[in-house]
Amino acid sequence: MPALPTREDKFSFGLWTVGWQARDPFGDATRAAVDPVESVNRLAELGAYGVTFHDDDLIPFGSDAGEREQHVKRFRAALDATGMAVPMVTTNLFTHPMFKDGAFTSNDRGVRRYALRKVMRNLDLAAELGATTYVFWGGREGAETDSAKDVRSALERYREGIDLLAEYVLDRGYAIRFAIEPKPNEPRGDILLPTVGSALAFISSLEHREMVGVNPEVGHEQMAGMNFVHSISQALWHGKLFHIDLNGQHGPKFDQDLVFGHGDLLSAFFLVDLLENGAPGGGPAYDGPRHFDYKPLRTEDMTGVWTSAASNMRTYLLLKERAAAFRSDPEVLEALRASQVRELAIPTLAPGESFAELLADASSFEDFDVDAAGSHGYGFAHLDQLAVEHVLGAR
Amino acid sequence: MPALPTREDKFSFGLWTVGWQARDPFGDATRAAVDPVESVNRLAELGAYGVTFHDDDLIPFGSDAGEREQHVKRFRAALDATGMAVPMVTTNLFTHPMFKDGAFTSNDRGVRRYALRKVMRNLDLAAELGATTYVFWGGREGAETDSAKDVRSALERYREGIDLLAEYVLDRGYAIRFAIEPKPNEPRGDILLPTVGSALAFISSLEHREMVGVNPEVGHEQMAGMNFVHSISQALWHGKLFHIDLNGQHGPKFDQDLVFGHGDLLSAFFLVDLLENGAPGGGPAYDGPRHFDYKPLRTEDMTGVWTSAASNMRTYLLLKERAAAFRSDPEVLEALRASQVRELAIPTLAPGESFAELLADASSFEDFDVDAAGSHGYGFAHLDQLAVEHVLGAR
Amino acid sequence: MPALPTREDKFSFGLWTVGWQARDPFGDATRAAVDPVESVNRLAELGAYGVTFHDDDLIPFGSDAGEREQHVKRFRAALDATGMAVPMVTTNLFTHPMFKDGAFTSNDRGVRRYALRKVMRNLDLAAELGATTYVFWGGREGAETDSAKDVRSALERYREGIDLLAEYVLDRGYAIRFAIEPKPNEPRGDILLPTVGSALAFISSLEHREMVGVNPEVGHEQMAGMNFVHSISQALWHGKLFHIDLNGQHGPKFDQDLVFGHGDLLSAFFLVDLLENGAPGGGPAYDGPRHFDYKPLRTEDMTGVWTSAASNMRTYLLLKERAAAFRSDPEVLEALRASQVRELAIPTLAPGESFAELLADASSFEDFDVDAAGSHGYGFAHLDQLAVEHVLGAR
Amino acid sequence: MPALPTREDKFSFGLWTVGWQARDPFGDATRAAVDPVESVNRLAELGAYGVTFHDDDLIPFGSDAGEREQHVKRFRAALDATGMAVPMVTTNLFTHPMFKDGAFTSNDRGVRRYALRKVMRNLDLAAELGATTYVFWGGREGAETDSAKDVRSALERYREGIDLLAEYVLDRGYAIRFAIEPKPNEPRGDILLPTVGSALAFISSLEHREMVGVNPEVGHEQMAGMNFVHSISQALWHGKLFHIDLNGQHGPKFDQDLVFGHGDLLSAFFLVDLLENGAPGGGPAYDGPRHFDYKPLRTEDMTGVWTSAASNMRTYLLLKERAAAFRSDPEVLEALRASQVRELAIPTLAPGESFAELLADASSFEDFDVDAAGSHGYGFAHLDQLAVEHVLGAR
Repeated sequence: MPALPTREDKFSFGLWTVGWQARDPFGDATRAAVDPVESVNRLAELGAYGVTFHDDDLIPFGSDAGEREQHVKRFRAALDATGMAVPMVTTNLFTHPMFKDGAFTSNDRGVRRYALRKVMRNLDLAAELGATTYVFWGGREGAETDSAKDVRSALERYREGIDLLAEYVLDRGYAIRFAIEPKPNEPRGDILLPTVGSALAFISSLEHREMVGVNPEVGHEQMAGMNFVHSISQALWHGKLFHIDLNGQHGPKFDQDLVFGHGDLLSAFFLVDLLENGAPGGGPAYDGPRHFDYKPLRTEDMTGVWTSAASNMRTYLLLKERAAAFRSDPEVLEALRASQVRELAIPTLAPGESFAELLADASSFEDFDVDAAGSHGYGFAHLDQLAVEHVLGAR
Repeated sequence: MPALPTREDKFSFGLWTVGWQARDPFGDATRAAVDPVESVNRLAELGAYGVTFHDDDLIPFGSDAGEREQHVKRFRAALDATGMAVPMVTTNLFTHPMFKDGAFTSNDRGVRRYALRKVMRNLDLAAELGATTYVFWGGREGAETDSAKDVRSALERYREGIDLLAEYVLDRGYAIRFAIEPKPNEPRGDILLPTVGSALAFISSLEHREMVGVNPEVGHEQMAGMNFVHSISQALWHGKLFHIDLNGQHGPKFDQDLVFGHGDLLSAFFLVDLLENGAPGGGPAYDGPRHFDYKPLRTEDMTGVWTSAASNMRTYLLLKERAAAFRSDPEVLEALRASQVRELAIPTLAPGESFAELLADASSFEDFDVDAAGSHGYGFAHLDQLAVEHVLGAR
Repeated sequence: MPALPTREDKFSFGLWTVGWQARDPFGDATRAAVDPVESVNRLAELGAYGVTFHDDDLIPFGSDAGEREQHVKRFRAALDATGMAVPMVTTNLFTHPMFKDGAFTSNDRGVRRYALRKVMRNLDLAAELGATTYVFWGGREGAETDSAKDVRSALERYREGIDLLAEYVLDRGYAIRFAIEPKPNEPRGDILLPTVGSALAFISSLEHREMVGVNPEVGHEQMAGMNFVHSISQALWHGKLFHIDLNGQHGPKFDQDLVFGHGDLLSAFFLVDLLENGAPGGGPAYDGPRHFDYKPLRTEDMTGVWTSAASNMRTYLLLKERAAAFRSDPEVLEALRASQVRELAIPTLAPGESFAELLADASSFEDFDVDAAGSHGYGFAHLDQLAVEHVLGAR
Repeated sequence: MPALPTREDKFSFGLWTVGWQARDPFGDATRAAVDPVESVNRLAELGAYGVTFHDDDLIPFGSDAGEREQHVKRFRAALDATGMAVPMVTTNLFTHPMFKDGAFTSNDRGVRRYALRKVMRNLDLAAELGATTYVFWGGREGAETDSAKDVRSALERYREGIDLLAEYVLDRGYAIRFAIEPKPNEPRGDILLPTVGSALAFISSLEHREMVGVNPEVGHEQMAGMNFVHSISQALWHGKLFHIDLNGQHGPKFDQDLVFGHGDLLSAFFLVDLLENGAPGGGPAYDGPRHFDYKPLRTEDMTGVWTSAASNMRTYLLLKERAAAFRSDPEVLEALRASQVRELAIPTLAPGESFAELLADASSFEDFDVDAAGSHGYGFAHLDQLAVEHVLGAR
């Protein structure tokens, strides 16, 4: 049985997760609004180290300056009392009807300008509260019909927006990095930057690309049938895993935001293994917040909300234990060796070898035993079975 | 009725398309092998301008030097006789059992070296035949189980391979650019670089990234539920649409390789419109080959093969006509205006405007009429309906 | 250009379609509520023949008897004034929080009893307004987790509910048939009776199965990757296509409810061809309402709402024209013959032939030329191309 | 650690599983053919109780009578020597080119007749070997294009075929039941009877429906995004779960046929729980063979083949242990009670209650506290978390 979560585990939650009132496309809210202060207190009790929010989660849209100050003050007091951090902040650029065709990429230039201002205001608050990551989920940046959106211009506007905001952060001297959160669809028919890959590509074109990474979400990648562990691996390879959203999903369908591990459990295991233990050769891979972006089921009352919040952390810790055992199991080590998994870290060329030398190496081609290479077994199924058995706690 | 295809339409086909013998995971071949020379002749007659191939399509794996020379000679003679071009060449790194765990990213270093050599040999042939694009479809670069592949090392090896081959091309002075073809899965459970986005991101990390672009395939993106027009738009935005594979697919399932237009017809229309007419504001967008990578249905005999080859081109030309009419329809122009589609090309900031000025502009935020922005209609459904009616030839 | 819709076209719309206020999981309403009376008037003007509703669309949940009477009276007056019919009525068993775990299959027996009562009350109104079809969409009958629902008991309760309501209708002498509407997921993680097939199977177990059919929806089947034309064909084959919901969808993702034809246009063509013209051998196949269950895009204002309503009908009529031309094209008839499509209507056994005679027929097996049967081509790609060209209005 | 498999566990494998030579759409075979006798011996050693086959797995297509006799004789000897049973047999109606447009539903009547004869011959062998289940997987019954297939006629021919074969079995007095295996697509673009639901509906129309059930396969249902536990539950509810194919799959993509448990592990747990322990209220649910229809990864050699065969059984037994612990955990029992899961087995109406009495019961509607019903929590997330923890072996 794993220990209870501690601050060192770096678990964080969005205010909008435990605070979700469970309104869905076909149904009214089943739960009352939750006071952000209560969320801070309860999450702290459960062992989380941080809380995150959209501007409008904390300060209702349309609040005046005085109200705004009051909301921030109460929240800050709760943070101080509990020692909870605010590692990440983000902007709501999707609820208000004005954003119905997007924010940074709305066809309406006035909306685009408003969106930039809304982010700038909230960046000030993020910095004030000590956040070091600012997430951009462009849920409304997209279209339902191909005639409605000039995608290249949209990407140009997206870049313009992020570049400007990066400049703003640098100018202000905020210790903030950006993380773009991809999603393939919902609420738009097709969202721009639909997968981790497309976001990474986009980032490579930014002026201040060094301060922009990704915030992949388990369910979002799985909605596109992507292998989440592969997506995370590519993000890590590019040095761009700045933040992560953990939850559960059952493949291509609406965004489920299940408790972490309540979707594809085997993938969750390999994800935790990667985040905690790094490559098969070892070394930690990610040291940022383990952020849960889930929605408590609409069938739950507030007791169920807090219980499910705890479940996210508990399952993570259990999988971390399983991963540690997997890594140290001698039979696993032998299977890894037989499968030549670590051999892939060895360059294909010898040190200093040029293509000319490769061309001259008859053993690489003319004399290569293609039949032997084609008939030897890798033992991948055995290795995967060992993983399954570790997940099952059976080894 | 559109004119028959001409060389100016730049239609090309892979030898492996019309030459597919229709062997599938559950069934034996239903057609005999096709002589590449016959394919050249028949495709030329049908109006194609070019033919493409994998090394093993032209020269069976294991041929000796003399056989190789004979195959190339006969093929060249057919090209000369018909005036057909070879705009693109690629390598078969997937059929032979040795590639069962990948080519550039196989856990077996010997296989990786062999793969590089196989490509280098074929690059010489590609250059000799005047190809200007060399495609990399890494169909076996991937895994079925997360324990089997260190994805970061795999990407590192992938990069090593492409970098080396780019160096080789540059050294030899070949006028060849590379195009990476993404695919999410099949034949591997998960393929590396699964979507256009992930390939674009990968490319941004290459040493000679200026000579590497993408070769997106309609069906491959749609297997991941991606909007193909969006994917192509992002590729164009990055300046990376070096080649394109046209065919048809019915969403996330096995790779169907249907005739172009026999899948999502509306998306095919918007694709042709984009390739031919560029952004809503105009300007050509793509001037490379219109390459069909389809498989004639397994139910067809050779008559059906050639008929279906022609259908690809015919549907493309019909959609091109429909797109031209769509672009010049005054009602469409009015709907575009009402939808503010072209307004998105206007920067969000005024010329020379800084964030400080944006902050100081009360009209952008403090005085912005959010209710008006939220209630005005974009008329996207009307615009899409005009497109549908143009596709139907009803306007 | 097709004539404008007339009452003979039997187009109908739900009040909840044009009346959708465009609240989605991530955004607030962008449109005001629409008075049902206005919807009746506008839809009548546009050429629809009928309007349908959930009880709560017409009479807000919680209305008292007097309010109820007023709502019905005003609505009836509008129907009388316009001549609009109410061919179908249904129940809202999903919006109120009490239905969060289902209606007929809620784990809470009190909710199950309430749900039956809510339907019975509304069946009285349906009969009073002359509806002949009553639709059951069990959107909340399902679960997110496998432990939460005893599916066999749930199906037993579902059956109990439908059997009871059938008995009620028969007792009251209402001229009403039931139609079950399948959907794979959303708002529940998995909905019971997810596809047309599972609903047909369920129906076969009902006490009054003769009065229960299906109400398939284009998008719902396509969310599960089903071929909608196949699903409708199976429903027709069972004699169970009692009603149909027409709209558009882009494959497995959230429920889009696009305008009819704005999703898979080629499938929409074959659907209209089937509904209007029946089997390839001919004969009408469906004579019920052509009911549009779409949602006007959230980006639209009320002008866009009414325009998009008209688009549904217009595209249907255009496709009907295309299908008529397809059916009478001599080249299509020749391709159908070559493809042996109509031969499938001929029984496999000769008239009166028994299995003993089949066993004795050496030509059926011992002497059958399997190679000839394997090598002859069906010409399906050509036939499909002719269909594509008819859709494009190019023949 | 579970005991090794015994005959009582009723594990069976198809000859085509361990015998798969790993030829895929893009690659040649990586393994040699396996002698069926060796498969019988090895599977027996591993603890399986039975082996199954397609006619052509045992007797190569085109064998003459003498060869046929020899193949059967050797196989029978191996069965006798090992005590292995043949619980199920099926027909290959998909590999030979003649079946390219289907078998029972080919547009070519000659092929349809041949298919019936091929099955009849193999039914004799099935009976001779003591098989009690005969599976029909209509992998080629379908189409790629909607114009190519008159689906209603196809279903009519399908019914004609099954009815005839049922008659044959009854006439011969064979103790054989039929089980139809649904699959949504691959190798055809769309396969008839795509899901368990559609097959159950089809069966309800058969003349000898009492002797026809389904053979659902984990991966096939998951390729359509179906919840496999729900599908199995509906099959059980109809009394139609005659056989089952266990394997693994990662959602909608090509048919992966992974080792059982190597896909959606959580779903595999709930499946085993259902098969072994029945409804939450208890009682066994399925007592037929636990049949594995998987394909050893193409990367494996024969050692990997036999190891992976064993893994299927081992994971099943581990999950069976986990399910037993889940069922007897007091905290689970308390959570089930709180979630009212078993309450669903109680009829909605009281014993003897009619709709008139329900109408008269004000507590069911007029006085029902809808707000209380909407606000009470079901605790489903907690219950699911307990299941996850049992799967992880953490309780």
